[in-house]
Amino acid sequence: MGGRGSIMQAINIGLLGFGTVGVGLAKLLIENGDVITARVGARLVLKKVVDIDTETDRGITLPSGTLSADAATVINNTDIDIVVEMIGGQTVAKELILAAIAKGKHVVTANKALLAVSGTEIFKAAHVKGVDVAYEASCGGCMPVVKTLRESLVGTRVQAIRGILNGTCNYILTKISTDGSSFTEALADAQKLGYAEADPSLDVDGHDTAHKLAMLAALAYGTDLNLDDIYVEGISRIGPMDIRYAAEEGYCIKLLAISKNSGDAIDARVHPAMIPKDHLLASINGRVNAVVITADAVDDIMLYGYGAGMMPTGSAVVADCVDLARNLLNGKSNRVPFLGYQMDELRPIAITPINEISTHYYIRFSALDQPGVLSTISGVLGDRGISIKTVHQKGRKNNGAVPVFIQTHRANEADIQNALTLIREKGVVDAKPVLIRIEDDRLND
Amino acid sequence: MGGRGSIMQAINIGLLGFGTVGVGLAKLLIENGDVITARVGARLVLKKVVDIDTETDRGITLPSGTLSADAATVINNTDIDIVVEMIGGQTVAKELILAAIAKGKHVVTANKALLAVSGTEIFKAAHVKGVDVAYEASCGGCMPVVKTLRESLVGTRVQAIRGILNGTCNYILTKISTDGSSFTEALADAQKLGYAEADPSLDVDGHDTAHKLAMLAALAYGTDLNLDDIYVEGISRIGPMDIRYAAEEGYCIKLLAISKNSGDAIDARVHPAMIPKDHLLASINGRVNAVVITADAVDDIMLYGYGAGMMPTGSAVVADCVDLARNLLNGKSNRVPFLGYQMDELRPIAITPINEISTHYYIRFSALDQPGVLSTISGVLGDRGISIKTVHQKGRKNNGAVPVFIQTHRANEADIQNALTLIREKGVVDAKPVLIRIEDDRLND
Repeated sequence: MGGRGSIMQAINIGLLGFGTVGVGLAKLLIENGDVITARVGARLVLKKVVDIDTETDRGITLPSGTLSADAATVINNTDIDIVVEMIGGQTVAKELILAAIAKGKHVVTANKALLAVSGTEIFKAAHVKGVDVAYEASCGGCMPVVKTLRESLVGTRVQAIRGILNGTCNYILTKISTDGSSFTEALADAQKLGYAEADPSLDVDGHDTAHKLAMLAALAYGTDLNLDDIYVEGISRIGPMDIRYAAEEGYCIKLLAISKNSGDAIDARVHPAMIPKDHLLASINGRVNAVVITADAVDDIMLYGYGAGMMPTGSAVVADCVDLARNLLNGKSNRVPFLGYQMDELRPIAITPINEISTHYYIRFSALDQPGVLSTISGVLGDRGISIKTVHQKGRKNNGAVPVFIQTHRANEADIQNALTLIREKGVVDAKPVLIRIEDDRLND
Repeated sequence: MGGRGSIMQAINIGLLGFGTVGVGLAKLLIENGDVITARVGARLVLKKVVDIDTETDRGITLPSGTLSADAATVINNTDIDIVVEMIGGQTVAKELILAAIAKGKHVVTANKALLAVSGTEIFKAAHVKGVDVAYEASCGGCMPVVKTLRESLVGTRVQAIRGILNGTCNYILTKISTDGSSFTEALADAQKLGYAEADPSLDVDGHDTAHKLAMLAALAYGTDLNLDDIYVEGISRIGPMDIRYAAEEGYCIKLLAISKNSGDAIDARVHPAMIPKDHLLASINGRVNAVVITADAVDDIMLYGYGAGMMPTGSAVVADCVDLARNLLNGKSNRVPFLGYQMDELRPIAITPINEISTHYYIRFSALDQPGVLSTISGVLGDRGISIKTVHQKGRKNNGAVPVFIQTHRANEADIQNALTLIREKGVVDAKPVLIRIEDDRLND
């Protein structure tokens, strides 16, 4: 294996941000250093670690002089080959990544929010400078979805992606469905267990999932990153009533990242969806991620694993460091293009606005308990050409309102939204209806 | 992206063996050539195809002069960069792979049987010559398990592998469990649908699965390929009775490749196993593959996909060709070592003989319908320290025999086998008992 002399070569890593995943990376480089070296044929050395907090005991002992609060000890350090950015956020992280690139350093990041927004700018800077930017850990934690799309499905045309990409949301939905908790109770439970942040909005509102979907769609179809046009809806309005109804109809409810490629345009949306109980993703429960990729040659392939956490994400960061180390040992960067397609082959593909999609819908109305309400609701739906498949009224009266559950045949989103607005205006419901799109390929009407 | 001139570079592929997967490769290179080029930045050209049958219409048109019956048109062709071996078997395939290596060509193969037996020899030859041998398609079809073990889990210590690696067996077991077919009926159905070969023994006897396990274990633990010491048992004795019993006890039955690493030794065995109904692999039904890899940093990760077939396997071959093409474009081979560890880091690890394992067992006796039989069976088990968890006698008499189902607590395989022999000798059963090992991490007694 060319280039290995009698002295084992070292690849020096500088880590920016010594939080959870940073500590995971440090632990793996130390505790599993022997297997990493045996695999790579070179040592990966954590040369410098930078964090504003240099005091907290993180349960790991770094060699003296490794930890400092000064990012320059990494960025301006000519010994450092790879800069690992684990700071998060859009400001300092971006500034330091661009500074590292400018210094000719290769970069590893797990910063999905930054890449979804500024990936194009960062990749262009890296391309010009001839350095690598690796980001497997930014999507799906230890689940190798970036590598699979960039390298394993390279001979296929990807047709669709359906993913559970946020473990917090999946934990909450699993909890609601197994013990009938409310959303609020399930969230509080997730927070108590450390599975959800104190401010959980990025997770439960679906934006974290959208960041990941922006990357997966770009990788799948050879298009630019486009976060702005992804429709995003969270899980906070899902209740046990919806999950019970779904179960009775043979469905379960997951927060899905969905993307479908029709050639001229793509769907790219994040929202709760009902999926058949025998769908591959239906049995994915708890604080994990899974993604099903549909492509012409392979039909469905699925990946599953922990999408977050110190060690699973740390493991993906190590894999990226090793990929870059192998490029360094070979003296060649940019072996695989950033988004899987050569930079000059990326082309814009429009995302179909949510109002223009058509699918099957579940709607739960909180209907006032008075005569004519059902007739008003079904009249409004019918006037817009929305064909009702089933109507159920289950459960008891709640403050003078009763839940009415409707499933539609295939309908246009614009018609549905228009009908829901009108139904509210008619004063026959006492709250915004809960709408869940049904992802069921078996339905064809 | 260094090296791209104004003329698009071509990587020339020579294909040996124009059967199902070879045709799949050719189709993908032609039909998806545009996306492959857009990803790689170079054209992958199928320059020569060799098969003894140059007449059959395979539903694909190759440029005139491409197909011939003479392997020398590939092996001795200085234009060919990558030789794809799709002949199968241990003789001609091996000879041609070694000849291609000797000529300095890179090799892609899906030949699991050859690699499991002669992989060490082939990899050594390639190492000496400085060429690559890629083999993603040899294990799990389109499921990127080789890449995941070699590249994505590079920072982890793999603790266990559990895989459904033969789609034919999984189809048959799914068929038995969904409609109560006998093994023979389910096999005939699989043959009718083209899912099983006319001679299905390599599949149903477990040897195909063992070939794949030999590779996965080597990749996981950094050890030499060791097919000979893998215990192999097929599915031909599994009947609907066993599957019904399993279902009632919360289990399903899968033909599993199992490997566990205890540091000094590994388990590596292929046999039908009962797994809990909520295990990740329990919901993997039909003609597909799935593998769960357990490693220190990631807990469980799972991959799922079609493990065979023209296009899924063809897609894995394309991925390998692209990996090698990228190495060629960079002028560097052997970027990732053949078995994931540097050649000089591979070390022998003993496989624990099946007789020395201990686990939980299900045994179905075909007991003679006469007094004292159950007492004889339980006596023999008890004498060997095998603790019985449950005994059931279900179903009707069959030719004077009744099925007796026993589950044991943890027991030693040697004791179990010894007891089964003695029970047969005592003349209280009229057939060899059916034994299925229970893979259930929840059991601890």
